Amino acid sequence: MPGNIFGTLFRVVTWGESHGPAIGAVIDGCPPGLPISPEVIQEELDRRRPGKGGVAETSRREPDRVEILSGTFEGKTTGTPISLIIWNKDPKPGAYDHLRDIFRPGHGDITYLKKYGIRDHRGGGRSSGRETAARVAAGAVAKILLKEHGIDVMAYTVALGGIEAKERDLSVCKENPFFCPDRDAAEKMKERVLQVKKDGDSLGGIVEVLCKGVPPGLGDPVFDKLDADLAKAVMSIGAVKGVEIGAGFKASTLLGSENNDPITPQGFLTNNAGGILAGISNGAEIILRAAVKPIPSIAQEQKTIDVEGRSTTIKIGGRHDISAIPRIVPVCEAMVRLVLADHLLRQMVNAQAKR
Amino acid sequence: MPGNIFGTLFRVVTWGESHGPAIGAVIDGCPPGLPISPEVIQEELDRRRPGKGGVAETSRREPDRVEILSGTFEGKTTGTPISLIIWNKDPKPGAYDHLRDIFRPGHGDITYLKKYGIRDHRGGGRSSGRETAARVAAGAVAKILLKEHGIDVMAYTVALGGIEAKERDLSVCKENPFFCPDRDAAEKMKERVLQVKKDGDSLGGIVEVLCKGVPPGLGDPVFDKLDADLAKAVMSIGAVKGVEIGAGFKASTLLGSENNDPITPQGFLTNNAGGILAGISNGAEIILRAAVKPIPSIAQEQKTIDVEGRSTTIKIGGRHDISAIPRIVPVCEAMVRLVLADHLLRQMVNAQAKR
Amino acid sequence: MPGNIFGTLFRVVTWGESHGPAIGAVIDGCPPGLPISPEVIQEELDRRRPGKGGVAETSRREPDRVEILSGTFEGKTTGTPISLIIWNKDPKPGAYDHLRDIFRPGHGDITYLKKYGIRDHRGGGRSSGRETAARVAAGAVAKILLKEHGIDVMAYTVALGGIEAKERDLSVCKENPFFCPDRDAAEKMKERVLQVKKDGDSLGGIVEVLCKGVPPGLGDPVFDKLDADLAKAVMSIGAVKGVEIGAGFKASTLLGSENNDPITPQGFLTNNAGGILAGISNGAEIILRAAVKPIPSIAQEQKTIDVEGRSTTIKIGGRHDISAIPRIVPVCEAMVRLVLADHLLRQMVNAQAKR
Amino acid sequence: MPGNIFGTLFRVVTWGESHGPAIGAVIDGCPPGLPISPEVIQEELDRRRPGKGGVAETSRREPDRVEILSGTFEGKTTGTPISLIIWNKDPKPGAYDHLRDIFRPGHGDITYLKKYGIRDHRGGGRSSGRETAARVAAGAVAKILLKEHGIDVMAYTVALGGIEAKERDLSVCKENPFFCPDRDAAEKMKERVLQVKKDGDSLGGIVEVLCKGVPPGLGDPVFDKLDADLAKAVMSIGAVKGVEIGAGFKASTLLGSENNDPITPQGFLTNNAGGILAGISNGAEIILRAAVKPIPSIAQEQKTIDVEGRSTTIKIGGRHDISAIPRIVPVCEAMVRLVLADHLLRQMVNAQAKR
Repeated sequence: MPGNIFGTLFRVVTWGESHGPAIGAVIDGCPPGLPISPEVIQEELDRRRPGKGGVAETSRREPDRVEILSGTFEGKTTGTPISLIIWNKDPKPGAYDHLRDIFRPGHGDITYLKKYGIRDHRGGGRSSGRETAARVAAGAVAKILLKEHGIDVMAYTVALGGIEAKERDLSVCKENPFFCPDRDAAEKMKERVLQVKKDGDSLGGIVEVLCKGVPPGLGDPVFDKLDADLAKAVMSIGAVKGVEIGAGFKASTLLGSENNDPITPQGFLTNNAGGILAGISNGAEIILRAAVKPIPSIAQEQKTIDVEGRSTTIKIGGRHDISAIPRIVPVCEAMVRLVLADHLLRQMVNAQAKR
Repeated sequence: MPGNIFGTLFRVVTWGESHGPAIGAVIDGCPPGLPISPEVIQEELDRRRPGKGGVAETSRREPDRVEILSGTFEGKTTGTPISLIIWNKDPKPGAYDHLRDIFRPGHGDITYLKKYGIRDHRGGGRSSGRETAARVAAGAVAKILLKEHGIDVMAYTVALGGIEAKERDLSVCKENPFFCPDRDAAEKMKERVLQVKKDGDSLGGIVEVLCKGVPPGLGDPVFDKLDADLAKAVMSIGAVKGVEIGAGFKASTLLGSENNDPITPQGFLTNNAGGILAGISNGAEIILRAAVKPIPSIAQEQKTIDVEGRSTTIKIGGRHDISAIPRIVPVCEAMVRLVLADHLLRQMVNAQAKR
Repeated sequence: MPGNIFGTLFRVVTWGESHGPAIGAVIDGCPPGLPISPEVIQEELDRRRPGKGGVAETSRREPDRVEILSGTFEGKTTGTPISLIIWNKDPKPGAYDHLRDIFRPGHGDITYLKKYGIRDHRGGGRSSGRETAARVAAGAVAKILLKEHGIDVMAYTVALGGIEAKERDLSVCKENPFFCPDRDAAEKMKERVLQVKKDGDSLGGIVEVLCKGVPPGLGDPVFDKLDADLAKAVMSIGAVKGVEIGAGFKASTLLGSENNDPITPQGFLTNNAGGILAGISNGAEIILRAAVKPIPSIAQEQKTIDVEGRSTTIKIGGRHDISAIPRIVPVCEAMVRLVLADHLLRQMVNAQAKR
Repeated sequence: MPGNIFGTLFRVVTWGESHGPAIGAVIDGCPPGLPISPEVIQEELDRRRPGKGGVAETSRREPDRVEILSGTFEGKTTGTPISLIIWNKDPKPGAYDHLRDIFRPGHGDITYLKKYGIRDHRGGGRSSGRETAARVAAGAVAKILLKEHGIDVMAYTVALGGIEAKERDLSVCKENPFFCPDRDAAEKMKERVLQVKKDGDSLGGIVEVLCKGVPPGLGDPVFDKLDADLAKAVMSIGAVKGVEIGAGFKASTLLGSENNDPITPQGFLTNNAGGILAGISNGAEIILRAAVKPIPSIAQEQKTIDVEGRSTTIKIGGRHDISAIPRIVPVCEAMVRLVLADHLLRQMVNAQAKR
């Protein structure tokens, strides 16, 4: 039944509901001696906050200020559990009273009730996207560890509402509200969003994650392969419905002679493997893509049932994000960082024990 | 460093190298009182065996006879660990002497050596597809448990070498060597395989897994979501480079109004969610697809390096499968069954404890 | 490296340092639908608070008020993580400045520094007894679950400073400050404590834990036996140096004919097994004893070294408890409850799955 | 429900029943590059074999030959799972037919049936002492790792049937059949055994485990403390009813001024802590004692019930060991080694990651 702990050596627990008093994360297994401050974590949290442009439209105003409650001493980690807390400053539990007895299509309302027999209906409770703030906070701690070891993780939007980015000019990402590395695509995305907003509808897209500086050797076959753990990590994000590594689904259409990455003394000539061979990092860049479904909260009328099983319809009012993109981008980064931090530590055992 | 144990309540360990004396699996946590026999497990293993048609071409002849060494008494499971062993009857360790000092592109040769500092080069050692026989054996035990609870898992080929199955007539699968539910597509796949074989090349494809009878409530948010665990399970299979649930990557191009599955008293009107909402099964069919890369062992000359890092080329002789499909099909089923068995047991706690 | 998570299905994480802003616990895996309130948890915490008599002498004044931050809805658990927080209201970090560069004998000062290379020296940091408040809070949640299933756990003092309780009249426990079920022994303990206090010394003792209503079948051989998990749980309490079940060490002096508990249709005639056979509860009362070492903080001068490894002496001033008893009593109860809650849930799987 | 996996980084699974075809262990997480051979493992197994003197009397003749089925290559470990198998050469399942419907006092017969609803009654099935052979085999692999790091673990008998060893002259152990480090005590034990054998009864005792060369820093507070994990490991051995570290239960009678180990530049002046402070090894010798109950299989008539719950009596015929001592001695060593190997690897992460 428990399922809120992630990782084996770098372990993270998240807790908290959308409209409870707070959300938070506890990290058990962060190595001692790392420089840490609320500011470093805050930086990542700020990237996830709403109000950044044409897609993120939520009316909830959360400052998302993180506090560190344990595990640090004089600006360094001590090796003991790091407890992070983010108070919910703008909860509006009463705003959800009308959703108490009805299931929103595409949401976990119906499955949570069927599973647990009880449901905190206020803003999705535990299944709310708000929980991902705790992941981002924990991922920021992982980022500190990875930085010490020269590992850098970046995510960005490569598709929105069917419009695909052809370019990968990462310097462009911050110029547009979609965190998209292709100027032309970003322009078209903007138009698409405006149209969809007018229709009271929502959009999905694809996020790509790029990891630089990952040393060879990370990943523990045969089950805890690096790609397997990455797939789990990213698929555990609410809106994600697909994950692929390297050439991914396209690899299924290639010939072996096309898909195999030739090896040279200078490294791999191509990177269809996405940096992972037989579940172990090969030293090349790790590339992963996540398919993000459209936000299920839409203004249009939808067929559904109430908790008694009776037919009804629902129109979800208020202002909602048009897409989980781009707010999901730092969440993807966080999850990938948690996996890399975990496997970095795991591989240290291997490296040191074999002598 | 350890990574060969899968699951939390229905736990499986696999062990063994391609050309060692044997491979096997130990299952810890199988409930007591289930009917079990070597024959039931053998049936699944036989589906994975080579020599079934135009795609599987390996010259190795393994009977893959499974023996049950523990955990059963008078034809029933006892709740203690079930140890399964499959002897390697046709190992040819010497046949790989020429691969001792060279890395095959697309294989784990290079990453295993970098990770462990030592490598059993004989037929891929632990990273060989042969390890999946142990998974299939373990999955067969999970199948017994699932059957008791009315859950049925089937996998089949929906794409090979870029040729996609349009139909889903499962009765057709056994008629063709690709286990494809579309007669026309199977015909075209046959031609494609013949061509590729002539070229000394190989093919990838897509496997779809369909789960019927899964009750609502399986999956443990926020990290051990059912889709997250399925993604890990399937991605841990060597040749898999992508996983998607329900509409999957296509969901990223849909509108919210298209992607949301309307709910009626009779169930969901569509199944873009693939049977999982917020990480919990919703009672609909669970549908998952895995992207399978082309077999890396090809007869064509490829650029690579030797263990000293010097440039060289390699041509992999002998008879090899043209595609991991269809032999990977029962492996996908096995991994999905392991996840469902695990979460079925996990949900029992929840169901019983809440009273 | 991580070691702050306990349990498999009823999982608990504790976090926090003695003189940080707060301490807390997160429970992942508590079943949904249980009645819960801060008051019920507070009741257990109050039993652990100092100022209860002749043994507990700490000058720190902590109200130990618990807040529930997540995992409940309208007075019931929801099956999601329960986050409990206790603010440190009376931290005096500066009071420990003189201990920054010196190791107190019998404390973890030296081992924490050797392990982590960094040490929060303020009041023992993470190794402080204060951490056990978080365990007691988590154990109170386990108590709610156990109560629903008719399981009752009580601990009490059966020895202090070498004075042993002969009686087990549990109604007497609350009459004396040692929580001792023997009036005469309690009287002698009182005198002993007065003497030792005058000498600036401290005392150890023995706590006995009695579990009623435990159904047969709890415990998972061969490693996660009920007694094995109980031993770990209780030995993980700072001051505990020994654990025994049933006849315990005395069993090593008995004959088989004396130690075996005869079985009758009405149950076992004796209980040398302490309620556990082959690692599984047998339906009889579970009895366990924990040996508690004397508090290492004493007013007498002691030989030690400083962080540079130089010889020195230390005299620990201020008011300290004379013994971990009786404050450790509810901590022992809490740890035993966590184990029983975990195995109760584990056995539910078994019971339900075997059909 | 699963409980047959031990350890976190150095993980061991054991499987097998007393009268099934074989027993075995799989080790997942053994570092690569260690020298390994069946002979090294066999050496440990031979120490556990019966027929060594006046106490071990079992009539079963098992050669206990171990085979390594995986995880090694050219005499070295490869980092992949090591599968060890020991065939049961002398199973006599039929010899237990009369025990099918009756519960032996002091055995797990009754609890296994109550837990699982099915029972392999042949020689105790999974609860048989025979399972410990698999532990000893796995512990031998841990021994190889520990040896590389200068850690040495020895166990010996310090009490049998109430007769206590005063001396600790380890060179004497091999001279007597009890593996006792005190010549006089061994002499008295011999007489005691003869008497008890005549009476058809059995004896318990105490095993002490001494660990040399353990570096400071092993153990992960607050739950996975080194002493906590040791307690679990040793208590998971069937016959053990108590565990203590260092001064153990005697510490409960000492004053703080007596129990605290003074620290000097040369190390600790005493070792009441038994080498562990606050759950972390302090560099001193680790000392642990395990209380072993008398063998429950005795020739005397005992009261019991049958599977229908009816009163009856039982007299256990055949030749049985008079005491689990000394055959349990290498089992204690094995379990302690598994814990040390696990925490040695765990601490490597810490040491390397903190930089």
